[in-house]
Amino acid sequence: MKIFEEIESEVQCYARSFPCVFNRAKGEFMWDEDGNRYLDFLAGAGTLNYGHNNALLKKELLNYIENDGITHGLDMHTKAKGEFLQTFSDKILKPRNLRYTVQFTGPTGTNAVEAAMKIARNVTGQSNIVTFTNGFHGVSLGALAATGNSHHRDAAGTSLTGTHRIPYDGYLGDNIDTTEYLDKVLSDSSSGINSPAAVIVETVQGEGGINAARIEWLRSLQTVCRKHSILLIIDDIQAGCGRTGDYFSFEEAGLEPDIVTLSKSLGGYGLPFAVVLMKPELDQWKPGEHNGTFRGNNLAFVTAKHAIDHYWSDNHFSNEIKRKGQYVSQRLTAMADKFGDGKFTVKGRGMFQGINCINGEIAGKITKNAFTKGLLIETSGADDQVVKLLCPLIIGDENLKAGLDIVELAIQETCEDFDSFPNETLYFKAS
Amino acid sequence: MKIFEEIESEVQCYARSFPCVFNRAKGEFMWDEDGNRYLDFLAGAGTLNYGHNNALLKKELLNYIENDGITHGLDMHTKAKGEFLQTFSDKILKPRNLRYTVQFTGPTGTNAVEAAMKIARNVTGQSNIVTFTNGFHGVSLGALAATGNSHHRDAAGTSLTGTHRIPYDGYLGDNIDTTEYLDKVLSDSSSGINSPAAVIVETVQGEGGINAARIEWLRSLQTVCRKHSILLIIDDIQAGCGRTGDYFSFEEAGLEPDIVTLSKSLGGYGLPFAVVLMKPELDQWKPGEHNGTFRGNNLAFVTAKHAIDHYWSDNHFSNEIKRKGQYVSQRLTAMADKFGDGKFTVKGRGMFQGINCINGEIAGKITKNAFTKGLLIETSGADDQVVKLLCPLIIGDENLKAGLDIVELAIQETCEDFDSFPNETLYFKAS
Amino acid sequence: MKIFEEIESEVQCYARSFPCVFNRAKGEFMWDEDGNRYLDFLAGAGTLNYGHNNALLKKELLNYIENDGITHGLDMHTKAKGEFLQTFSDKILKPRNLRYTVQFTGPTGTNAVEAAMKIARNVTGQSNIVTFTNGFHGVSLGALAATGNSHHRDAAGTSLTGTHRIPYDGYLGDNIDTTEYLDKVLSDSSSGINSPAAVIVETVQGEGGINAARIEWLRSLQTVCRKHSILLIIDDIQAGCGRTGDYFSFEEAGLEPDIVTLSKSLGGYGLPFAVVLMKPELDQWKPGEHNGTFRGNNLAFVTAKHAIDHYWSDNHFSNEIKRKGQYVSQRLTAMADKFGDGKFTVKGRGMFQGINCINGEIAGKITKNAFTKGLLIETSGADDQVVKLLCPLIIGDENLKAGLDIVELAIQETCEDFDSFPNETLYFKAS
Amino acid sequence: MKIFEEIESEVQCYARSFPCVFNRAKGEFMWDEDGNRYLDFLAGAGTLNYGHNNALLKKELLNYIENDGITHGLDMHTKAKGEFLQTFSDKILKPRNLRYTVQFTGPTGTNAVEAAMKIARNVTGQSNIVTFTNGFHGVSLGALAATGNSHHRDAAGTSLTGTHRIPYDGYLGDNIDTTEYLDKVLSDSSSGINSPAAVIVETVQGEGGINAARIEWLRSLQTVCRKHSILLIIDDIQAGCGRTGDYFSFEEAGLEPDIVTLSKSLGGYGLPFAVVLMKPELDQWKPGEHNGTFRGNNLAFVTAKHAIDHYWSDNHFSNEIKRKGQYVSQRLTAMADKFGDGKFTVKGRGMFQGINCINGEIAGKITKNAFTKGLLIETSGADDQVVKLLCPLIIGDENLKAGLDIVELAIQETCEDFDSFPNETLYFKAS
Repeated sequence: MKIFEEIESEVQCYARSFPCVFNRAKGEFMWDEDGNRYLDFLAGAGTLNYGHNNALLKKELLNYIENDGITHGLDMHTKAKGEFLQTFSDKILKPRNLRYTVQFTGPTGTNAVEAAMKIARNVTGQSNIVTFTNGFHGVSLGALAATGNSHHRDAAGTSLTGTHRIPYDGYLGDNIDTTEYLDKVLSDSSSGINSPAAVIVETVQGEGGINAARIEWLRSLQTVCRKHSILLIIDDIQAGCGRTGDYFSFEEAGLEPDIVTLSKSLGGYGLPFAVVLMKPELDQWKPGEHNGTFRGNNLAFVTAKHAIDHYWSDNHFSNEIKRKGQYVSQRLTAMADKFGDGKFTVKGRGMFQGINCINGEIAGKITKNAFTKGLLIETSGADDQVVKLLCPLIIGDENLKAGLDIVELAIQETCEDFDSFPNETLYFKAS
Repeated sequence: MKIFEEIESEVQCYARSFPCVFNRAKGEFMWDEDGNRYLDFLAGAGTLNYGHNNALLKKELLNYIENDGITHGLDMHTKAKGEFLQTFSDKILKPRNLRYTVQFTGPTGTNAVEAAMKIARNVTGQSNIVTFTNGFHGVSLGALAATGNSHHRDAAGTSLTGTHRIPYDGYLGDNIDTTEYLDKVLSDSSSGINSPAAVIVETVQGEGGINAARIEWLRSLQTVCRKHSILLIIDDIQAGCGRTGDYFSFEEAGLEPDIVTLSKSLGGYGLPFAVVLMKPELDQWKPGEHNGTFRGNNLAFVTAKHAIDHYWSDNHFSNEIKRKGQYVSQRLTAMADKFGDGKFTVKGRGMFQGINCINGEIAGKITKNAFTKGLLIETSGADDQVVKLLCPLIIGDENLKAGLDIVELAIQETCEDFDSFPNETLYFKAS
Repeated sequence: MKIFEEIESEVQCYARSFPCVFNRAKGEFMWDEDGNRYLDFLAGAGTLNYGHNNALLKKELLNYIENDGITHGLDMHTKAKGEFLQTFSDKILKPRNLRYTVQFTGPTGTNAVEAAMKIARNVTGQSNIVTFTNGFHGVSLGALAATGNSHHRDAAGTSLTGTHRIPYDGYLGDNIDTTEYLDKVLSDSSSGINSPAAVIVETVQGEGGINAARIEWLRSLQTVCRKHSILLIIDDIQAGCGRTGDYFSFEEAGLEPDIVTLSKSLGGYGLPFAVVLMKPELDQWKPGEHNGTFRGNNLAFVTAKHAIDHYWSDNHFSNEIKRKGQYVSQRLTAMADKFGDGKFTVKGRGMFQGINCINGEIAGKITKNAFTKGLLIETSGADDQVVKLLCPLIIGDENLKAGLDIVELAIQETCEDFDSFPNETLYFKAS
Repeated sequence: MKIFEEIESEVQCYARSFPCVFNRAKGEFMWDEDGNRYLDFLAGAGTLNYGHNNALLKKELLNYIENDGITHGLDMHTKAKGEFLQTFSDKILKPRNLRYTVQFTGPTGTNAVEAAMKIARNVTGQSNIVTFTNGFHGVSLGALAATGNSHHRDAAGTSLTGTHRIPYDGYLGDNIDTTEYLDKVLSDSSSGINSPAAVIVETVQGEGGINAARIEWLRSLQTVCRKHSILLIIDDIQAGCGRTGDYFSFEEAGLEPDIVTLSKSLGGYGLPFAVVLMKPELDQWKPGEHNGTFRGNNLAFVTAKHAIDHYWSDNHFSNEIKRKGQYVSQRLTAMADKFGDGKFTVKGRGMFQGINCINGEIAGKITKNAFTKGLLIETSGADDQVVKLLCPLIIGDENLKAGLDIVELAIQETCEDFDSFPNETLYFKAS
């Protein structure tokens, strides 16, 4: 631990929640140097949907490295890239009747978002992009302007421009459809909101507090975009790749976004990888306009291809996620009822759920308590008030149950600790 | 090839220069699917200083994966990260009397630049950052504002703010020290240049055309920065990790930058990895202010550690680079003399050299010709007028000679193709 | 007319609505070169509250010029400025228990708005300023960012930054209090709306379509500002100086804004003049930080002083405005009922009223028709759909009646012209 | 004085230099309330070229007001406006073979600059505007981005964008033609300077320290602009209207700027007035895109017309200015020689001259001393180090001599006060 204290930056974050040194991981488990085992309900913040060091992918990865396959290929054509594209086309796009061009960006989510915003702006000639309250899209300057969290925004050190923020579904209460507000300002030449290039939205806001937009709201949003000739960008970096039950989180709503960003679990093995999908007519890039040294991380192409081949060639995996998601939902609802009186509410969709606490202090106590019981779990939301469940999608049923048992116990013990539990109403009740 | 045409974005760039599908690589060689071998003088745009799939690093990488070491660790403490930090501290920082805190950013150069600019702005409370003509620092929005190339800048689709541009060394001719101009505008309360947080500079501008700043200019730049309490950021992403002969490109000038960015060859094996080094007193980050899913790409930590252990424990490798650099210099100078009359000039430092042609058309013909002879080589500069040599630093002497022989032949054949070689003077003669 | 066609810019606007050359004016009347008389229901867009060439003020003005009083005084102390300040303090501020410091800015409304935004940003250290849909605050770049109209915004030619727009009262329908939305985004650290320096608001939006905020909404807005330590700027350039019945338009709501901008009718005689009023503790300007050649337009100080002395020493004038305002209201309501079925609605407050038509085409036909009958009257609103009544406050009752009779006739004739009057519902019914 | 202390803002500036209350002015003289007479070498910062309350213009002004001519006309056609346009066309434009369209903006210099920048941006579709070190163009946000002075810039409270700054003539020393630098960055696609809409420049920088660009530099600047299809905007607000000897300050260089801004002495009598002149093909404004309540300040039209009729119908006045300018030059040079050793240098052109002191402290002592002798005179420059002479152009020879005598005496007494006059070299020796 000494070296971390000596020279690693104060910016570290998760390391503070889990003060140990990890050295091995498999499936839904991590081990620290002292041999302690932890059940992982964080899963690389949604990057390890297929678990740590997934055996199937590991075999392919080792084989590729052994044979001196291309590791780093800039944006050159490689066999590994070609095979990924073929699989992605055959197993993901075609069965869903989606026609997208694939752009390999720098292998981070924020870089994919930057590219998506650029191409939307360039194609439309408009610089404004509509974003939503509590959205999170990354922290490089372009993406940061789209991100809502002031903790991240205030670190910019310069002005964040080119976006306009609109209330997300539920933000103004359940009775108000905020897409109507969007429609109105876009119809009103004097609204003061510049004609936008695009809307960028998460179907479920992860960092924002596991806020799941209603399906009808998502549809209405697409309708408003079409009406005003605005591009619809779905940032599916955290919600995509199966997290909500389908490969894309927008399938349930039947959307056809103009642009989609993917990263996190796309690579399958936790390796850096990100792409932008865009309707072919939007692919007006000139050669090299958006570049980046590591946009050819071929090791990730290999694991990405095999993850899709194995998990997404039929509906089995998707059905399993949905089944487990229902179980999570049922357990969380029971907890909310048990410790209840409106003190806890359940949020989210599929295996992207969370439990909203009255405030961040309580949520923090719950996750800290859970850690002492061997569960890695984190909070999100404006005030870190949501305990979020992001376990690997491949988790075994008994481990899923075990993890939820720990959550339940942690809530119980946290509640007992509070002599008089705060009676304040939930500020963010609407969202 | 079909799948690339079908669904890969038009943004691809290198793939156009080298129209084949690569499937294997080793050291300084790449092979395509048809079994053709290519000598690689591009080296992942400076990412493969230790060659493709370096055997030594490969062994460690395979071993780590086999044993289910942590692959993806967010910013958690892991054994692999700790070992990298220890080696980096012991073998790189301490011997050079450098005291830096290490920040793991998203694993792309542009992300490290974004973080460096942020922390400089936050610590100083100033938003302006001084940048240089022909500089390249990445294409995410914050870094893009620091990048000079209009091809990339024009793709932003929104305004690029927060930087002020100053002529790089040589830009106003050899007789003018542009740091004096910088000194003057900073001393003049009415210059219209806002008091800056920092200067960001490459010691050798790679994408800008292999422009190597004079050692005394670099020292003078540091002096001006100190005088005006401005942070000095060296972007050593391309020039660092040994490219110019020393580990850091600023060692020859004896600089002590406040902030340094590293990426590209840092990981050693071509795996995505980037860090920001900053003087400890600048590490005023709050937890998680700058985050990113893949800032814990542990596979890269493993190869990075072993690359340093092997190549930077003593001076041997550094001396070898310098020796080869002198050979490159000698060969290129001979070519410039041979095909000469000021039509070609040699630029750069160490193994970061290039040959400046009268225009991009000629440079393009040379690299195209070289490709037909089995050499992968690219151009850079505002008009793509510089043939740049970026071969792996570990290249064998005979292959280095072979590559240079091809370059020479390509120049000769290109010159022969031009009946009357253009007699125009070099516009960028100064830089 | 020829010279106008030859060399005056196409930017001219009112000149298109009233194609004649005016050469004389008195009270509520203007005459053109051919001797035609027009009743003026535009009054310099609210600048001539005391009528054209008000006899009382004219006498003082002539006297001052005759005696070689200072005409142009930069920001030097002059007798005329001192007398204006004394009168403004004694007759306007003290009786209303208002303590304000007075800043003389460049003599245009937009310049006062620029100064107000600057001081708010400087004092708070925040750059964001909350603005409202349909607001108008001027067209110099800083003020333009606060203005909602895209006709003006699109002419900027560069990005408009530093503001965030919130729906004005009524914008989301009558049942929604948009200050609650403002309160929520300011309470939510993840809303994506940067902590603002100030809110800038008109109590009645003139250019935006004579939208009068409800009194309770204005109070609630002040409460939200106080709660979040945000400065409240009332832009009273058009609504102030008696237009709504009181000297300040916010008196009815009992507000105590932190900053107030005044211009237009402030000078009394139509002479350029503008001030910023600010609470004394906000007056943190350094000497000359905000300057401007004509901030000492002493002729306007003379007429401003006498206008206040004469009209605002007691309640008589205020009561007269309210009485006339009620008459206007009554007449307009009768017209809306008569030509009705929701086709016309009445908007505004005091002598700042308008009649909302279904669309701009109809409103335009009405004002054109009225012009043929000798009435100068204009439209406003996003689609120029509101016929706005801005006659001089000193208008004689019989002329007020005459003008309203013309409006009524113009509406009637316009309605008759439409065989089948459009049945579309009013889009902007809410506001 | 009490009322000023009580409620006038701290932003006041000139009032601090001249702590008295003025109440009368005529020609080159001002009087305070105690009857003290002052010789005015400030002349409303260049606004009173024809002197205070010029008798000739006063007669016309009084006559116009007596007859109830239009005072405030928005942008409507009025007789006074037509007559001004006719005279301006006949006496100013035609004799100089200039074809310009005239735009009436808000009656402040900064508003004219805002309009000029807008139209340049709109016509070209580029947002970047090239500005110069030490330039001053006003303090509303758009103009402020073009202004160099940090005292004003720092008061913005938000980021100033859309401009790029280039060294003014002499800024890099006398041997360097900074238009070559401009040419180079515009020719270099990788310079990082966005393709600009326009260059905005003063031929003599007034606030910047009476820096007069060389005639050949101005010509070269126009050539570079033409070469790169960039609009040339001359901000002639302070240097125009005869200050340098010709009506326009660019006549000596024979320039044909695309856009010209005029204000200050344009109105003749010190009344607020400003226009933008632009080549007819640039007049692509849509109606009302740039508006402003006081763009029809008809009293100023009246005095402007008569000032031109009287002073610019032949060369007499121009010749007189040049003669007096030579006298000023001769006297100042003699002073610099007398008190000399490089401690004082003479700057400027025509009757727009100044004496550069080693620092602002000395310049301030000189002007303070002069005030005690009855001379109103001010400093300018980054460090207020230039004593600037801006007396009315109509000044009588004996009064011009008297003023210069006071300046000389003030310098002498200031020099005597310094036991050991500082020997530091002049930092800004180049400019």
